[in-house]
Amino acid sequence: MLTFYHAPWSRSSGVFWLLEELGVDYRMEIVDIRAKGGVDEAYRSIQPNKKVPAIVHDGVTITERAAICIHLADAFPQAGLAPAIGDPRRGPYLTWMVYSDSVFDPAVAARAHGLTYGSNDYSFGLFEDLVGNLERHLSANAFAAGDAFTAADTQLASGIGFTMNIMKVLPDKPVFRDYLARATGRPAYGRVQEKDAELARLHPWEQNFG
Amino acid sequence: MLTFYHAPWSRSSGVFWLLEELGVDYRMEIVDIRAKGGVDEAYRSIQPNKKVPAIVHDGVTITERAAICIHLADAFPQAGLAPAIGDPRRGPYLTWMVYSDSVFDPAVAARAHGLTYGSNDYSFGLFEDLVGNLERHLSANAFAAGDAFTAADTQLASGIGFTMNIMKVLPDKPVFRDYLARATGRPAYGRVQEKDAELARLHPWEQNFG
Ligand SMILES: N[C@@H](CCC(=O)N[C@@H](CS)C(=O)NCC(=O)O)C(=O)O
Ligand SMILES: N[C@@H](CCC(=O)N[C@@H](CS)C(=O)NCC(=O)O)C(=O)O
Repeated sequence: MLTFYHAPWSRSSGVFWLLEELGVDYRMEIVDIRAKGGVDEAYRSIQPNKKVPAIVHDGVTITERAAICIHLADAFPQAGLAPAIGDPRRGPYLTWMVYSDSVFDPAVAARAHGLTYGSNDYSFGLFEDLVGNLERHLSANAFAAGDAFTAADTQLASGIGFTMNIMKVLPDKPVFRDYLARATGRPAYGRVQEKDAELARLHPWEQNFG
Repeated sequence: MLTFYHAPWSRSSGVFWLLEELGVDYRMEIVDIRAKGGVDEAYRSIQPNKKVPAIVHDGVTITERAAICIHLADAFPQAGLAPAIGDPRRGPYLTWMVYSDSVFDPAVAARAHGLTYGSNDYSFGLFEDLVGNLERHLSANAFAAGDAFTAADTQLASGIGFTMNIMKVLPDKPVFRDYLARATGRPAYGRVQEKDAELARLHPWEQNFG
Protein backbone atom coordinates (compact mmCIF):
# COMPACT_ATOMS: atom_id res chain seq x y z
CA MET A 1 0.00 0.00 0.00
CA LEU A 2 1.41 3.31 -1.16
CA THR A 3 -0.18 6.73 -0.60
CA PHE A 4 1.30 9.80 -2.28
CA TYR A 5 0.59 13.30 -0.93
CA HIS A 6 0.74 15.70 -3.83
CA ALA A 7 -0.10 19.21 -5.02
CA PRO A 8 -0.16 19.79 -8.79
CA TRP A 9 2.73 21.85 -10.25
CA SER A 10 4.77 21.73 -7.09
CA ARG A 11 7.92 20.14 -5.69
CA SER A 12 5.96 16.89 -5.39
CA SER A 13 5.61 16.74 -9.18
CA GLY A 14 9.12 15.27 -9.43
CA VAL A 15 8.11 12.41 -7.13
CA PHE A 16 4.91 12.03 -9.17
CA TRP A 17 7.17 11.60 -12.20
CA LEU A 18 9.26 8.96 -10.42
CA LEU A 19 6.12 7.04 -9.38
CA GLU A 20 5.00 7.00 -13.01
CA GLU A 21 8.46 5.84 -14.12
CA LEU A 22 8.34 3.00 -11.59
CA GLY A 23 4.95 1.88 -12.85
CA VAL A 24 3.68 1.01 -9.39
CA ASP A 25 0.18 1.25 -7.94
CA TYR A 26 -0.46 4.13 -5.59
CA ARG A 27 -3.26 6.23 -4.22
CA MET A 28 -2.97 10.02 -4.52
CA GLU A 29 -4.07 12.46 -1.82
CA ILE A 30 -4.20 16.08 -2.91
CA VAL A 31 -2.88 18.55 -0.30
CA ASP A 32 -4.16 22.06 -0.82
CA ILE A 33 -0.86 23.84 -0.16
CA ARG A 34 -2.25 27.07 -1.59
CA ALA A 35 -5.32 27.12 0.72
CA LYS A 36 -6.01 30.60 2.06
CA GLY A 37 -5.87 29.64 5.74
CA GLY A 38 -2.88 27.34 5.19
CA VAL A 39 -2.81 23.56 5.11
CA ASP A 40 -4.95 21.79 7.74
CA GLU A 41 -2.89 21.31 10.92
CA ALA A 42 -3.76 17.58 10.92
CA TYR A 43 -1.40 17.13 7.95
CA ARG A 44 1.58 18.03 10.14
CA SER A 45 1.58 14.47 11.51
CA ILE A 46 2.44 13.36 7.96
CA GLN A 47 4.83 16.18 6.94
CA PRO A 48 6.35 18.32 9.72
CA ASN A 49 6.46 21.46 7.55
CA LYS A 50 2.99 20.72 6.10
CA LYS A 51 4.64 20.54 2.68
CA VAL A 52 4.41 18.09 -0.18
CA PRO A 53 5.60 15.52 -1.13
CA ALA A 54 5.12 12.81 1.46
CA ILE A 55 4.42 9.12 1.05
CA VAL A 56 3.07 6.44 3.35
CA HIS A 57 4.42 3.09 2.20
CA ASP A 58 3.29 -0.07 3.98
CA GLY A 59 2.35 2.06 6.99
CA VAL A 60 5.64 3.97 7.15
CA THR A 61 5.66 7.73 6.55
CA ILE A 62 8.55 9.06 4.49
CA THR A 63 9.22 12.74 3.81
CA GLU A 64 11.90 14.84 2.06
CA ARG A 65 12.14 14.40 -1.70
CA ALA A 66 15.59 12.80 -1.78
CA ALA A 67 14.65 10.31 0.94
CA ILE A 68 11.38 9.43 -0.80
CA CYS A 69 13.08 8.95 -4.16
CA ILE A 70 16.01 6.92 -2.81
CA HIS A 71 13.51 4.75 -0.94
CA LEU A 72 11.13 4.23 -3.88
CA ALA A 73 13.79 3.51 -6.49
CA ASP A 74 15.41 0.91 -4.18
CA ALA A 75 12.04 -0.58 -3.18
CA PHE A 76 11.12 -1.18 -6.84
CA PRO A 77 14.43 -2.23 -8.39
CA GLN A 78 12.81 -3.83 -11.45
CA ALA A 79 12.49 -0.33 -12.97
CA GLY A 80 16.28 -0.04 -12.99
CA LEU A 81 16.28 3.59 -11.82
CA ALA A 82 18.70 3.19 -8.89
CA PRO A 83 22.27 1.91 -9.21
CA ALA A 84 22.47 -0.91 -6.65
CA ILE A 85 24.63 -0.77 -3.53
CA GLY A 86 28.15 -1.64 -4.71
CA ASP A 87 27.65 -0.20 -8.21
CA PRO A 88 30.19 2.62 -8.77
CA ARG A 89 27.36 4.88 -10.00
CA ARG A 90 25.65 4.64 -6.60
CA GLY A 91 27.82 7.44 -5.12
CA PRO A 92 27.13 10.09 -7.78
CA TYR A 93 23.49 8.98 -7.79
CA LEU A 94 23.17 9.67 -4.05
CA THR A 95 25.20 12.88 -4.31
CA TRP A 96 22.94 14.38 -6.99
CA MET A 97 19.80 13.22 -5.26
CA VAL A 98 20.81 14.97 -2.02
CA TYR A 99 22.37 18.00 -3.76
CA SER A 100 19.01 18.83 -5.41
CA ASP A 101 17.53 19.38 -1.95
CA SER A 102 20.52 20.52 0.14
CA VAL A 103 22.22 22.92 -2.30
CA PHE A 104 20.16 23.57 -5.44
CA ASP A 105 16.88 24.45 -3.79
CA PRO A 106 18.13 26.74 -0.96
CA ALA A 107 20.72 28.44 -3.22
CA VAL A 108 18.00 29.29 -5.75
CA ALA A 109 15.62 30.44 -2.99
CA ALA A 110 18.23 32.79 -1.50
CA ARG A 111 18.90 34.24 -4.95
CA ALA A 112 15.18 34.56 -5.79
CA HIS A 113 14.55 36.40 -2.50
CA GLY A 114 17.61 38.61 -2.95
CA LEU A 115 19.10 37.33 0.32
CA THR A 116 22.84 36.98 0.93
CA TYR A 117 24.43 35.20 3.85
CA GLY A 118 27.61 37.27 3.95
CA SER A 119 29.87 34.64 5.52
CA ASN A 120 30.57 31.05 4.49
CA ASP A 121 28.97 29.38 7.51
CA TYR A 122 25.87 28.15 5.68
CA SER A 123 25.72 24.83 3.92
CA PHE A 124 24.50 25.55 0.38
CA GLY A 125 27.09 28.01 -0.90
CA LEU A 126 26.94 30.60 -3.65
CA PHE A 127 24.41 30.67 -6.47
CA GLU A 128 27.32 31.10 -8.91
CA ASP A 129 28.93 27.91 -7.61
CA LEU A 130 25.64 26.06 -8.16
CA VAL A 131 25.36 27.25 -11.76
CA GLY A 132 29.02 26.42 -12.46
CA ASN A 133 28.65 22.94 -11.01
CA LEU A 134 25.49 22.18 -13.00
CA GLU A 135 27.14 23.42 -16.21
CA ARG A 136 30.32 21.41 -15.69
CA HIS A 137 28.49 18.24 -14.72
CA LEU A 138 25.91 18.32 -17.49
CA SER A 139 28.51 19.15 -20.14
CA ALA A 140 30.46 16.03 -19.18
CA ASN A 141 27.57 13.67 -18.36
CA ALA A 142 24.32 12.86 -20.14
CA PHE A 143 22.51 12.38 -16.84
CA ALA A 144 22.93 13.08 -13.12
CA ALA A 145 24.62 9.76 -12.34
CA GLY A 146 26.42 9.36 -15.67
CA ASP A 147 25.28 7.71 -18.91
CA ALA A 148 21.86 6.47 -17.94
CA PHE A 149 18.65 8.08 -16.69
CA THR A 150 18.05 7.36 -12.98
CA ALA A 151 15.64 8.51 -10.28
CA ALA A 152 18.09 11.35 -9.56
CA ASP A 153 17.13 12.88 -12.92
CA THR A 154 13.47 13.15 -11.91
CA GLN A 155 14.71 15.53 -9.20
CA LEU A 156 17.47 17.36 -11.06
CA ALA A 157 15.45 17.87 -14.26
CA SER A 158 12.40 19.00 -12.26
CA GLY A 159 14.58 21.51 -10.42
CA ILE A 160 16.27 22.83 -13.56
CA GLY A 161 13.01 22.98 -15.51
CA PHE A 162 11.14 24.86 -12.83
CA THR A 163 13.86 27.31 -11.84
CA MET A 164 14.90 28.08 -15.44
CA ASN A 165 11.58 28.06 -17.30
CA ILE A 166 9.04 29.14 -14.67
CA MET A 167 10.94 31.04 -11.96
CA LYS A 168 13.51 32.33 -14.45
CA VAL A 169 16.19 32.41 -11.77
CA LEU A 170 18.52 29.78 -13.20
CA PRO A 171 20.11 31.23 -16.37
CA ASP A 172 18.77 29.85 -19.64
CA LYS A 173 21.69 27.93 -21.17
CA PRO A 174 21.94 25.38 -24.00
CA VAL A 175 23.55 22.84 -21.66
CA PHE A 176 20.46 22.98 -19.43
CA ARG A 177 18.01 22.89 -22.37
CA ASP A 178 19.83 19.89 -23.85
CA TYR A 179 19.74 18.05 -20.55
CA LEU A 180 16.02 18.78 -20.14
CA ALA A 181 15.39 17.45 -23.65
CA ARG A 182 17.27 14.24 -22.80
CA ALA A 183 15.65 13.76 -19.40
CA THR A 184 12.05 14.79 -20.01
CA GLY A 185 11.38 13.18 -23.39
CA ARG A 186 9.85 10.16 -21.70
CA PRO A 187 6.26 8.86 -21.59
CA ALA A 188 6.09 9.02 -17.78
CA TYR A 189 7.05 12.70 -17.83
CA GLY A 190 4.38 13.43 -20.44
CA ARG A 191 1.73 11.64 -18.38
CA VAL A 192 2.60 13.70 -15.31
CA GLN A 193 2.40 16.97 -17.25
CA GLU A 194 -1.08 16.02 -18.47
CA LYS A 195 -2.26 14.84 -15.08
CA ASP A 196 -0.90 17.88 -13.25
CA ALA A 197 -2.71 20.15 -15.72
CA GLU A 198 -5.93 18.24 -15.11
CA LEU A 199 -5.46 18.24 -11.31
CA ALA A 200 -4.77 21.99 -11.37
CA ARG A 201 -8.08 22.50 -13.20
CA LEU A 202 -9.93 20.35 -10.65
CA HIS A 203 -8.23 22.02 -7.67
CA PRO A 204 -7.80 25.68 -8.59
CA TRP A 205 -6.00 27.87 -6.10
CA GLU A 206 -5.96 31.51 -5.25
CA GLN A 207 -2.40 32.07 -4.10
CA ASN A 208 0.61 32.08 -6.36
CA PHE A 209 2.91 29.07 -6.48
CA GLY A 210 3.60 28.04 -2.86
CA MET B 1 40.68 2.77 -0.86
CA LEU B 2 38.89 5.51 1.02
CA THR B 3 40.02 9.13 1.31
CA PHE B 4 38.19 11.50 3.65
CA TYR B 5 38.42 15.29 3.17
CA HIS B 6 38.02 16.90 6.55
CA ALA B 7 38.41 20.09 8.56
CA PRO B 8 38.45 19.76 12.35
CA TRP B 9 35.35 21.02 14.20
CA SER B 10 33.28 21.40 11.08
CA ARG B 11 30.35 19.80 9.29
CA SER B 12 32.70 17.00 8.26
CA SER B 13 33.13 15.99 11.92
CA GLY B 14 29.84 14.07 11.75
CA VAL B 15 31.17 12.00 8.87
CA PHE B 16 34.42 11.55 10.81
CA TRP B 17 32.28 10.13 13.62
CA LEU B 18 30.53 7.74 11.23
CA LEU B 19 33.86 6.55 9.81
CA GLU B 20 35.04 5.79 13.34
CA GLU B 21 31.77 3.96 14.09
CA LEU B 22 32.22 1.84 10.97
CA GLY B 23 35.74 0.90 11.99
CA VAL B 24 37.06 1.05 8.43
CA ASP B 25 40.47 2.07 7.15
CA TYR B 26 40.70 5.48 5.56
CA ARG B 27 43.19 8.19 4.76
CA MET B 28 42.43 11.73 5.93
CA GLU B 29 43.15 14.87 3.90
CA ILE B 30 42.85 18.11 5.82
CA VAL B 31 41.18 20.93 3.86
CA ASP B 32 42.00 24.36 5.24
CA ILE B 33 38.49 25.80 4.94
CA ARG B 34 39.48 28.76 7.13
CA ALA B 35 42.49 29.74 4.94
CA LYS B 36 42.72 33.51 4.48
CA GLY B 37 42.64 33.42 0.66
CA GLY B 38 39.98 30.70 0.62
CA VAL B 39 40.39 27.04 -0.21
CA ASP B 40 42.67 26.23 -3.16
CA GLU B 41 40.67 26.26 -6.39
CA ALA B 42 41.99 22.78 -7.26
CA TYR B 43 39.78 21.34 -4.52
CA ARG B 44 36.67 22.35 -6.49
CA SER B 45 37.10 19.24 -8.65
CA ILE B 46 36.44 17.22 -5.49
CA GLN B 47 33.73 19.38 -3.86
CA PRO B 48 31.90 21.92 -6.08
CA ASN B 49 31.42 24.39 -3.21
CA LYS B 50 34.98 23.79 -1.93
CA LYS B 51 33.41 22.60 1.32
CA VAL B 52 34.01 19.58 3.52
CA PRO B 53 33.17 16.74 3.81
CA ALA B 54 33.95 14.79 0.66
CA ILE B 55 35.13 11.23 0.20
CA VAL B 56 36.77 9.37 -2.65
CA HIS B 57 35.88 5.70 -2.34
CA ASP B 58 37.38 3.21 -4.82
CA GLY B 59 38.00 6.10 -7.20
CA VAL B 60 34.49 7.56 -6.96
CA THR B 61 34.00 11.04 -5.49
CA ILE B 62 30.99 11.46 -3.22
CA THR B 63 29.86 14.76 -1.71
CA GLU B 64 26.95 16.01 0.44
CA ARG B 65 26.83 14.68 3.99
CA ALA B 66 23.61 12.67 3.65
CA ALA B 67 24.84 11.04 0.43
CA ILE B 68 28.22 10.21 1.95
CA CYS B 69 26.65 8.72 5.09
CA ILE B 70 23.99 6.71 3.25
CA HIS B 71 26.70 5.38 0.96
CA LEU B 72 29.17 4.50 3.72
CA ALA B 73 26.68 2.84 6.06
CA ASP B 74 25.37 0.68 3.17
CA ALA B 75 28.87 -0.09 1.90
CA PHE B 76 29.93 -1.41 5.32
CA PRO B 77 26.80 -3.23 6.53
CA GLN B 78 28.66 -5.27 9.13
CA ALA B 79 28.56 -2.23 11.47
CA GLY B 80 24.76 -2.44 11.51
CA LEU B 81 24.28 1.33 11.21
CA ALA B 82 21.88 1.32 8.25
CA PRO B 83 18.51 -0.44 8.19
CA ALA B 84 18.63 -2.58 5.03
CA ILE B 85 16.42 -1.97 1.99
CA GLY B 86 13.07 -3.54 2.90
CA ASP B 87 13.44 -2.92 6.64
CA PRO B 88 10.56 -0.66 7.81
CA ARG B 89 13.09 1.57 9.57
CA ARG B 90 14.77 2.38 6.24
CA GLY B 91 12.22 5.14 5.44
CA PRO B 92 12.62 7.15 8.66
CA TYR B 93 16.37 6.56 8.45
CA LEU B 94 16.54 8.14 5.00
CA THR B 95 14.13 10.91 5.98
CA TRP B 96 16.22 12.01 8.96
CA MET B 97 19.46 11.71 7.06
CA VAL B 98 18.18 14.04 4.32
CA TYR B 99 16.27 16.33 6.70
CA SER B 100 19.51 17.17 8.55
CA ASP B 101 20.84 18.72 5.33
CA SER B 102 17.72 19.93 3.53
CA VAL B 103 15.76 21.43 6.43
CA PHE B 104 17.76 21.58 9.68
CA ASP B 105 20.87 23.24 8.33
CA PRO B 106 19.30 25.96 6.12
CA ALA B 107 16.55 26.72 8.66
CA VAL B 108 19.18 27.29 11.37
CA ALA B 109 21.34 29.36 9.00
CA ALA B 110 18.43 31.64 8.08
CA ARG B 111 17.64 32.14 11.77
CA ALA B 112 21.29 32.72 12.71
CA HIS B 113 21.61 35.34 9.95
CA GLY B 114 18.30 36.98 10.87
CA LEU B 115 16.94 36.33 7.37
CA THR B 116 13.28 35.66 6.65
CA TYR B 117 11.88 34.44 3.36
CA GLY B 118 8.46 36.04 3.70
CA SER B 119 6.53 33.59 1.54
CA ASN B 120 6.29 29.81 1.66
CA ASP B 121 8.05 29.11 -1.65
CA TYR B 122 11.31 27.88 -0.11
CA SER B 123 11.92 24.29 0.81
CA PHE B 124 13.10 24.30 4.43
CA GLY B 125 10.23 26.03 6.23
CA LEU B 126 10.10 27.90 9.51
CA PHE B 127 12.65 27.62 12.31
CA GLU B 128 9.75 27.09 14.73
CA ASP B 129 8.54 24.11 12.69
CA LEU B 130 12.05 22.63 12.84
CA VAL B 131 12.23 22.96 16.63
CA GLY B 132 8.73 21.52 17.04
CA ASN B 133 9.51 18.56 14.81
CA LEU B 134 12.77 17.77 16.61
CA GLU B 135 11.03 17.98 19.98
CA ARG B 136 8.13 15.76 18.97
CA HIS B 137 10.33 13.18 17.30
CA LEU B 138 12.92 12.93 20.06
CA SER B 139 10.27 12.77 22.79
CA ALA B 140 8.73 9.74 21.08
CA ASN B 141 11.88 8.04 19.78
CA ALA B 142 15.24 7.26 21.36
CA PHE B 143 17.05 7.81 18.06
CA ALA B 144 16.48 9.31 14.61
CA ALA B 145 15.22 6.07 13.05
CA GLY B 146 13.54 4.66 16.17
CA ASP B 147 14.92 2.45 18.95
CA ALA B 148 18.47 1.94 17.76
CA PHE B 149 21.42 4.20 16.97
CA THR B 150 22.06 4.46 13.22
CA ALA B 151 24.26 6.50 10.90
CA ALA B 152 21.45 9.11 10.82
CA ASP B 153 22.26 9.90 14.47
CA THR B 154 25.83 10.89 13.60
CA GLN B 155 24.27 13.67 11.52
CA LEU B 156 21.32 14.62 13.72
CA ALA B 157 23.30 14.62 16.97
CA SER B 158 26.15 16.57 15.35
CA GLY B 159 23.64 19.14 14.13
CA ILE B 160 21.84 19.45 17.47
CA GLY B 161 25.08 19.55 19.45
CA PHE B 162 26.66 22.24 17.31
CA THR B 163 23.62 24.48 16.90
CA MET B 164 22.54 24.22 20.56
CA ASN B 165 25.88 24.20 22.41
CA ILE B 166 28.21 26.18 20.14
CA MET B 167 26.05 28.43 17.93
CA LYS B 168 23.35 28.74 20.62
CA VAL B 169 20.64 29.10 17.98
CA LEU B 170 18.70 25.92 18.73
CA PRO B 171 16.99 26.36 22.12
CA ASP B 172 18.54 24.44 24.99
CA LYS B 173 15.91 21.84 25.98
CA PRO B 174 16.04 18.70 28.13
CA VAL B 175 14.74 16.60 25.23
CA PHE B 176 17.75 17.65 23.14
CA ARG B 177 20.24 17.18 26.02
CA ASP B 178 18.84 13.71 26.72
CA TYR B 179 19.12 12.75 23.07
CA LEU B 180 22.70 14.02 22.90
CA ALA B 181 23.55 11.99 26.00
CA ARG B 182 22.10 8.85 24.38
CA ALA B 183 23.70 9.42 20.98
CA THR B 184 27.15 10.71 21.89
CA GLY B 185 28.07 8.44 24.81
CA ARG B 186 29.96 6.14 22.46
CA PRO B 187 33.67 5.38 22.10
CA ALA B 188 33.77 6.46 18.44
CA TYR B 189 32.34 9.87 19.35
CA GLY B 190 34.92 10.30 22.10
CA ARG B 191 37.76 9.41 19.73
CA VAL B 192 36.58 12.01 17.21
CA GLN B 193 36.39 14.72 19.87
CA GLU B 194 39.98 13.97 20.88
CA LYS B 195 41.25 13.78 17.33
CA ASP B 196 39.49 16.97 16.24
CA ALA B 197 41.02 18.80 19.21
CA GLU B 198 44.45 17.52 18.22
CA LEU B 199 43.94 18.36 14.53
CA ALA B 200 42.78 21.86 15.46
CA ARG B 201 46.03 22.33 17.42
CA LEU B 202 48.09 21.11 14.47
CA HIS B 203 46.14 23.22 11.93
CA PRO B 204 45.27 26.47 13.69
CA TRP B 205 43.16 28.95 11.76
CA GLU B 206 42.64 32.67 11.84
CA GLN B 207 39.00 33.01 10.82
CA ASN B 208 36.06 32.02 12.94
CA PHE B 209 34.16 28.82 12.28
CA GLY B 210 33.56 28.64 8.51
N1 LIG C 1 12.12 19.88 2.15
C1 LIG C 1 10.93 19.49 1.41
C2 LIG C 1 10.38 20.70 0.66
C3 LIG C 1 9.08 20.48 -0.05
C4 LIG C 1 8.42 21.80 -0.46
O1 LIG C 1 9.04 22.87 -0.37
N2 LIG C 1 7.15 21.71 -0.87
C5 LIG C 1 6.35 22.86 -1.26
C6 LIG C 1 5.72 22.59 -2.60
S1 LIG C 1 6.46 23.42 -3.91
C7 LIG C 1 5.18 23.05 -0.32
O2 LIG C 1 4.52 22.10 0.04
N3 LIG C 1 4.89 24.30 0.07
C8 LIG C 1 3.70 24.63 0.81
C9 LIG C 1 3.95 25.27 2.15
O3 LIG C 1 5.10 25.45 2.53
O4 LIG C 1 2.95 25.62 2.80
C10 LIG C 1 11.27 18.37 0.46
O5 LIG C 1 12.34 18.42 -0.14
O6 LIG C 1 10.49 17.41 0.33
N1 LIG D 1 26.10 20.88 1.58
C1 LIG D 1 27.36 20.48 2.22
C2 LIG D 1 27.73 21.53 3.24
C3 LIG D 1 29.07 21.32 3.89
C4 LIG D 1 29.56 22.58 4.60
O1 LIG D 1 28.81 23.54 4.78
N2 LIG D 1 30.85 22.56 5.01
C5 LIG D 1 31.50 23.68 5.67
C6 LIG D 1 32.18 23.18 6.92
S1 LIG D 1 31.33 23.52 8.36
C7 LIG D 1 32.63 24.24 4.82
O2 LIG D 1 33.40 23.47 4.26
N3 LIG D 1 32.75 25.57 4.75
C8 LIG D 1 33.87 26.19 4.11
C9 LIG D 1 33.51 27.11 2.98
O3 LIG D 1 32.33 27.23 2.63
O4 LIG D 1 34.44 27.74 2.44
C10 LIG D 1 27.16 19.12 2.87
O5 LIG D 1 26.11 18.90 3.46
O6 LIG D 1 28.05 18.27 2.78
